[in-house]
Amino acid sequence: MSTTNLAVIPGDGIGPEVTAEALKVLEVASPVKFEQTRYDLGAERYLATGEVLPESVLAEIKEQDAILLGAVGGKPNDPNLPPGILERGLLLKLRFELDHYVNLRPSRLFPGATSPLAAAVLDKGEIDFVVVREGTEGLYTGNGGAMRVGTPHEVATETSVNTAYGVERVVRDAFARAQARPRKKLTLVHKTNVLVNAGSLWWRITQQVAEEFPDVTVDYLHIDAVMIFLATDPSRFDVIVTDNIFGDIITDLAAAITGGIGLAASGNINSSREFPSMFEPVHGSAPDIAGQQKADPTAAILSGALLLEHLGHPEAAAAIDAAVLADLAERGSEPRTTSEVGDAIAARV
Amino acid sequence: MSTTNLAVIPGDGIGPEVTAEALKVLEVASPVKFEQTRYDLGAERYLATGEVLPESVLAEIKEQDAILLGAVGGKPNDPNLPPGILERGLLLKLRFELDHYVNLRPSRLFPGATSPLAAAVLDKGEIDFVVVREGTEGLYTGNGGAMRVGTPHEVATETSVNTAYGVERVVRDAFARAQARPRKKLTLVHKTNVLVNAGSLWWRITQQVAEEFPDVTVDYLHIDAVMIFLATDPSRFDVIVTDNIFGDIITDLAAAITGGIGLAASGNINSSREFPSMFEPVHGSAPDIAGQQKADPTAAILSGALLLEHLGHPEAAAAIDAAVLADLAERGSEPRTTSEVGDAIAARV
Ligand SMILES: CC(C)[C@H](C(=O)O)[C@@H](O)C(=O)O
Ligand SMILES: CC(C)[C@H](C(=O)O)[C@@H](O)C(=O)O
Repeated sequence: MSTTNLAVIPGDGIGPEVTAEALKVLEVASPVKFEQTRYDLGAERYLATGEVLPESVLAEIKEQDAILLGAVGGKPNDPNLPPGILERGLLLKLRFELDHYVNLRPSRLFPGATSPLAAAVLDKGEIDFVVVREGTEGLYTGNGGAMRVGTPHEVATETSVNTAYGVERVVRDAFARAQARPRKKLTLVHKTNVLVNAGSLWWRITQQVAEEFPDVTVDYLHIDAVMIFLATDPSRFDVIVTDNIFGDIITDLAAAITGGIGLAASGNINSSREFPSMFEPVHGSAPDIAGQQKADPTAAILSGALLLEHLGHPEAAAAIDAAVLADLAERGSEPRTTSEVGDAIAARV
Repeated sequence: MSTTNLAVIPGDGIGPEVTAEALKVLEVASPVKFEQTRYDLGAERYLATGEVLPESVLAEIKEQDAILLGAVGGKPNDPNLPPGILERGLLLKLRFELDHYVNLRPSRLFPGATSPLAAAVLDKGEIDFVVVREGTEGLYTGNGGAMRVGTPHEVATETSVNTAYGVERVVRDAFARAQARPRKKLTLVHKTNVLVNAGSLWWRITQQVAEEFPDVTVDYLHIDAVMIFLATDPSRFDVIVTDNIFGDIITDLAAAITGGIGLAASGNINSSREFPSMFEPVHGSAPDIAGQQKADPTAAILSGALLLEHLGHPEAAAAIDAAVLADLAERGSEPRTTSEVGDAIAARV
């Protein structure tokens, strides 16, 4: 039995609780043994030590095979926690340093899951799509500035930087994922009618890469039109590829529509495998319910399935998926504790 | 009876049909007489003459009191119509030249209107909010560029430009609108944890202007969180203020959620009244159903109400609103023609 080195970042709030359940299920499902190393990173560490992500820790993490992250973030409006410091200093820093150019976010309407969408919309067909969000470029590059700050003449800018190199690799990854799915459909989302420079680059590269995947159907939608389709006909989507900020926006809506953020898993993937990829639930640290065994660990568990799939264990990933599906289908109205949900899913694997 | 000069841009596709009904209702409701001047602008004119918005036409429009626009846009993928040419050359050009810094988009769930949201969500409360979208800055300024185009080393940028001047005037306008509403609540939407320069400017100015409006409750949400709340609890919103691109995205989702884009009205407003403001339905020109009397003119009619309100005739605007409300409440499943809907609403005013 080979060993895989796994960095575990439980984080803050409900992070440690949901991570524990994800690990419980991972250990049952995985054909390989995980050698775990825990890293205490997040709001608590920052508040105690002033450290967000020490260089030595980053260097260690870079040597791991994969990363499982719970959630990071302190209490809202904590005066000792500058806004955005953990997001930029930890989450985005890891995405950029580990070159996580594929931010993968599947959206499925699981049987039994409640969705705010009426039956009329859901009747249009099964909802099962993935968003391939670019993770290392766009408006997330920190290319902005400000002058005359605090005066009536202040000018503040944010620049979205897009490169052929960056766009092509993520578009190619999305095409490959589309090709591996039954419907083989890819939708590029952008705002080409306004963002003409970046839009043109995304558009041209998508057309070029499409030639390598003649069996994939290619479609284009403006980001505003996507809002309408997600709310009225989400079953039309199969694989969506889009930039960093549009992907951020789309995936939260997609999660809300397909049963809530409590089920949304994500992978921050370096498809070229130079660096470890990182898997995390889309939800936050929810400090208000932390430590009470109230959090739903399903998104963390599904993130574990994405991790197994990425590491080359598709059967084990499918087993977790099937166990989650079965568990969801039989969820009653009785609330269960975080670990009861983890136990139930682990037992089914 | 005083006279008001009204520029009418019927546009393409269903534009002329819905504009005719909006004018029908406007004429019944308005306490002032409109002196109409029609401007043939849009895809048809461009295809026939190569002209999008001649300077002389722009100069004439600038002298009008207000503008009513139907919809512009040709057939999808018309090879003779370069993508984005009408959007940028006409719609955005008018917004920028006429300094339409307040892009106003009300969202209401009208009685009788169908919404894809399940009863469970709608039960949380009445849905009635307005989005005040900044209309002259941000990513819409055309501040982008590209280098090494077409090579593997292409870099394409888009810069969001935000000024204290531009942010303050739209935020102040939004506060004034919030103060005039029963709930007096304003939600700033941005992505301050990532877009730190622009986000900080929007945040600080909102805090500053809030001091002038002590009776308005101020709230902040990241754009991704807004997606979740719009899909699960839209009744929490009263006035949303946000930048140009986030406003573009939010308003289409809001329209989809509250009964569809067929009911969404908008105003492109120059609140300082140096230039005429422009009112238009949010929907497009829908060339596939043009000329068939199938289009719903309600959004155009409601845009007429916004126009009357802007021109200082709130009672007349309220009369149109009430007529639309009554019409919607009694809409059966029998389809009516575009002009039947207009007639019915005009008769109720
Ligand atoms: C926390 C934040 C920086 C992050 C993002 O914007 O990417 C989050 O919203 C996400 O989607 O993972
Ligand atoms: C047509 C397009 C340029 C426009 C915009 O992005 O503002 C439209 O989507 C809108 O919302 O009015």
